[in-house]
Amino acid sequence: MSSTPRLKALNIDNINPHVKAAKYAVRGELAIKSEEYRAQLRKLKDEPPTPPAENKLPFDTVISANIGNPQQLDQKPITFFRQVLSLLEYPNLLDHSDVLLQHLDYKQDAVDRARWLIKEIGSVGAYSQSTGVPAIRKSVARYIEKRDGFPADFNNIYLSAGASSGVNTLMHIMCANDKSGILVPIPQYPLYTATLSVLNARCCPYYLDESTGWGTDLETVRKSYEDAKKDGTDVRAIVIINPGNPTGASLPRSDIENIIKFAAENQLVVMADEVYQTNVFIGEFISFKKVLRELQRDNPGTYDHVELASLHSISKGMVGECGHRGGYFELVGFDKEVQEQIYKFISIMLCPPVTGQCCVELMINPPQEGDPSYELYYKEYKGIEDGLKVRATALYEAFKEMEGVDIGEPQGSMYLFPTITIPEKAQQVAKEKGKNADEFYCLELLDATGICVVPGSGFGQKPGTLHFRTTFLAPGTEWVGRITKFHKEFMDQYR
Amino acid sequence: MSSTPRLKALNIDNINPHVKAAKYAVRGELAIKSEEYRAQLRKLKDEPPTPPAENKLPFDTVISANIGNPQQLDQKPITFFRQVLSLLEYPNLLDHSDVLLQHLDYKQDAVDRARWLIKEIGSVGAYSQSTGVPAIRKSVARYIEKRDGFPADFNNIYLSAGASSGVNTLMHIMCANDKSGILVPIPQYPLYTATLSVLNARCCPYYLDESTGWGTDLETVRKSYEDAKKDGTDVRAIVIINPGNPTGASLPRSDIENIIKFAAENQLVVMADEVYQTNVFIGEFISFKKVLRELQRDNPGTYDHVELASLHSISKGMVGECGHRGGYFELVGFDKEVQEQIYKFISIMLCPPVTGQCCVELMINPPQEGDPSYELYYKEYKGIEDGLKVRATALYEAFKEMEGVDIGEPQGSMYLFPTITIPEKAQQVAKEKGKNADEFYCLELLDATGICVVPGSGFGQKPGTLHFRTTFLAPGTEWVGRITKFHKEFMDQYR
Repeated sequence: MSSTPRLKALNIDNINPHVKAAKYAVRGELAIKSEEYRAQLRKLKDEPPTPPAENKLPFDTVISANIGNPQQLDQKPITFFRQVLSLLEYPNLLDHSDVLLQHLDYKQDAVDRARWLIKEIGSVGAYSQSTGVPAIRKSVARYIEKRDGFPADFNNIYLSAGASSGVNTLMHIMCANDKSGILVPIPQYPLYTATLSVLNARCCPYYLDESTGWGTDLETVRKSYEDAKKDGTDVRAIVIINPGNPTGASLPRSDIENIIKFAAENQLVVMADEVYQTNVFIGEFISFKKVLRELQRDNPGTYDHVELASLHSISKGMVGECGHRGGYFELVGFDKEVQEQIYKFISIMLCPPVTGQCCVELMINPPQEGDPSYELYYKEYKGIEDGLKVRATALYEAFKEMEGVDIGEPQGSMYLFPTITIPEKAQQVAKEKGKNADEFYCLELLDATGICVVPGSGFGQKPGTLHFRTTFLAPGTEWVGRITKFHKEFMDQYR
Repeated sequence: MSSTPRLKALNIDNINPHVKAAKYAVRGELAIKSEEYRAQLRKLKDEPPTPPAENKLPFDTVISANIGNPQQLDQKPITFFRQVLSLLEYPNLLDHSDVLLQHLDYKQDAVDRARWLIKEIGSVGAYSQSTGVPAIRKSVARYIEKRDGFPADFNNIYLSAGASSGVNTLMHIMCANDKSGILVPIPQYPLYTATLSVLNARCCPYYLDESTGWGTDLETVRKSYEDAKKDGTDVRAIVIINPGNPTGASLPRSDIENIIKFAAENQLVVMADEVYQTNVFIGEFISFKKVLRELQRDNPGTYDHVELASLHSISKGMVGECGHRGGYFELVGFDKEVQEQIYKFISIMLCPPVTGQCCVELMINPPQEGDPSYELYYKEYKGIEDGLKVRATALYEAFKEMEGVDIGEPQGSMYLFPTITIPEKAQQVAKEKGKNADEFYCLELLDATGICVVPGSGFGQKPGTLHFRTTFLAPGTEWVGRITKFHKEFMDQYR
């Protein structure tokens, strides 16, 4: 062993360069720092030092507004969902349904639903089929039929561990080599660019139009597509996030139609990230599937070849069951052999979490009027919905008043994405620290207030513009005041 | 739109060729066919046709012996685990602990554990940190310390969605380009080869030695390594599955030591798949971590640079909570910058399922002697353990009696992997059908008996040898009789 080398087999210079190139700011430096602050505050509380020490931080709580994680911010889970899940975890409870009903606030429909799911699934501790439990996929198909007014086939429904896992699957299939490209809106949720990096495929960015409330301009998309083709990119798909993340924009029907037509013309898969489909404040959500089916109906033969993947999740909406990792995607118009490869790819990871699958079923098939659990369900659902709107509005009103901040009215999703103007002097300091100006602003905000948001550079933004994304999930409005105060002081310091 | 193309954007010839190249027989053609049989039988039962039709299949039940999925095969979950999980799903129950204790068979330690987990986690519906809940990682570190007698640092513990997801992460980091290679035992669990295919990296196979009960022969490993180097492969790591899958072999300490020394000498990461660590019938499980720490202690300076990743899972052992998708890996000796990249990579998928994480905590920190839940826990655990041994032995005895079947004594894991001899005539028929001979045998077995096993070719086997893998999870012994009967008829037909 005298010649044993002492080097590490793996170091930063020899690991996968594509992983290294990936960026994912939602859980990046800022988020890590905020967790350190949280741990520090918690330690002070749980293990008070002797002699007693003061909290040296200028805040008492950390507010994680960097990520749509409602239940971390005290959003209560919906009772019906959790009652059913508790019964699935411990089915012996079903032998005591009298106790459940009389002493523990369960309702008969929760008991019935749990019985039905257990009959269909067996145990939630068993692997399901790789595409998910057939009965749950059938339930999803019925939901889509009802939502859109067009048939859906459960064979085309794939349950997944959150929408993220679905995106990962689809991009793995679509990206064939380093010339494969996908049209991605900018700003975007960075899952898309990060996954393209890991796959060593190309991101073909198309900028959303802030001046029209982050609209999707077809000419911009076309230009971006043509530029990509000129670069030798084999453009495979177009991603649309509707309602938007981070923008919150809710697409009008005409934009959806335009994108489908464009995809049809140029043989692109349409990848519709519709995880915020129930988070809409202005107008109504219209699914890509519905518009595609209407186009197909009204123009026989013209759009039959279009391939659409639509993604949904239990993490968003009024459900917010992020930790359960559930979601699904529906494939429309996909080639059978391609679907077989998708099946094989997901089977390597065996199956999505089974309670997450059950949560999908509960989300898309909640108690109906007349059901024993309906009243409470409706109250909880509406309470969350109203709360989101109230807080979105409070935050919007506060942003409107801030110097150099520009913001459109909240339309949907869980985010606001204001433009900020950062004084020259602050930009200089940021540069000296090797940071983007928006990143510097967000770091200062975190250090001063304990509020964690994500700089616009983490999502992409037009050169020369600066933004940050904040969720409007944190309860109360006290923290909005913290932002206002910080912003004023920041501007005073650097103006 | 007159020039609209009618072709599909995605077809079998233009999708990702590396996904296409991947093979994963555990859920392949045979498994799909078995699910179709299962659906057929179920439909006959649930929706009896008019006029009544007979079951045309020559069996009444499908036995999925293709995959280690205990709870699909009627293994009951461990009560303590599920009680705690039910409380995590519906924490309101904790307000009625008197009802739980008096009427619903919960014990105080289940209630206490749930309270503690909720205090640490908040809601199981919230995303956790990407590496998992810190308190659970600390608990895992304590388990490892106790198991090995050496310290473990929770910062090096990464919770994952089953061990599969951990393997996927580590391989993504290690494989830098199409010259990167990993030493993989053959036969192996096909997750490894499938992931290498997807990553377009190289599998450097080393054959296990069937004549020594599937032992790991260092000379064979060395030869394989040298061959790979000669081919220009940048060998990064060596995978060991202990106890073995599909072989069931349990490695002696000397083999573990040899592999670590070999890895140290040649700067290879040791990737120890130890998910069957509690499924050992002969001898005892010794972890790679323990042997590494002992080597480091006894040979100061010589092995400090060794990098080890050890994986564990809730899906195996006596836990069998596959559907909850939980696991962890521990990194030893990894470079800090590399760990930062691992963190970033997993953060793109946000976090592993939180109830799966909790299940990890319950597995590695079960009730102890004197705790109120201990007696039942022990009884259930022991019952499962004994059941596995009884069935392994029954199957082993049956295989020993079969013509042309060769099998070693069951040592561990959940599988038997007998050698089969297939008559020339049957090999001819297989060839005509475009199948491997072992695949043909397994298809015939499924069609005749409803029992689904996986042909040896799905795991890799020495050229000229034929095997299949069966779990010994299915209850009873009636199905063993079905195999015996089929085998005799198959041999009679083709001898």
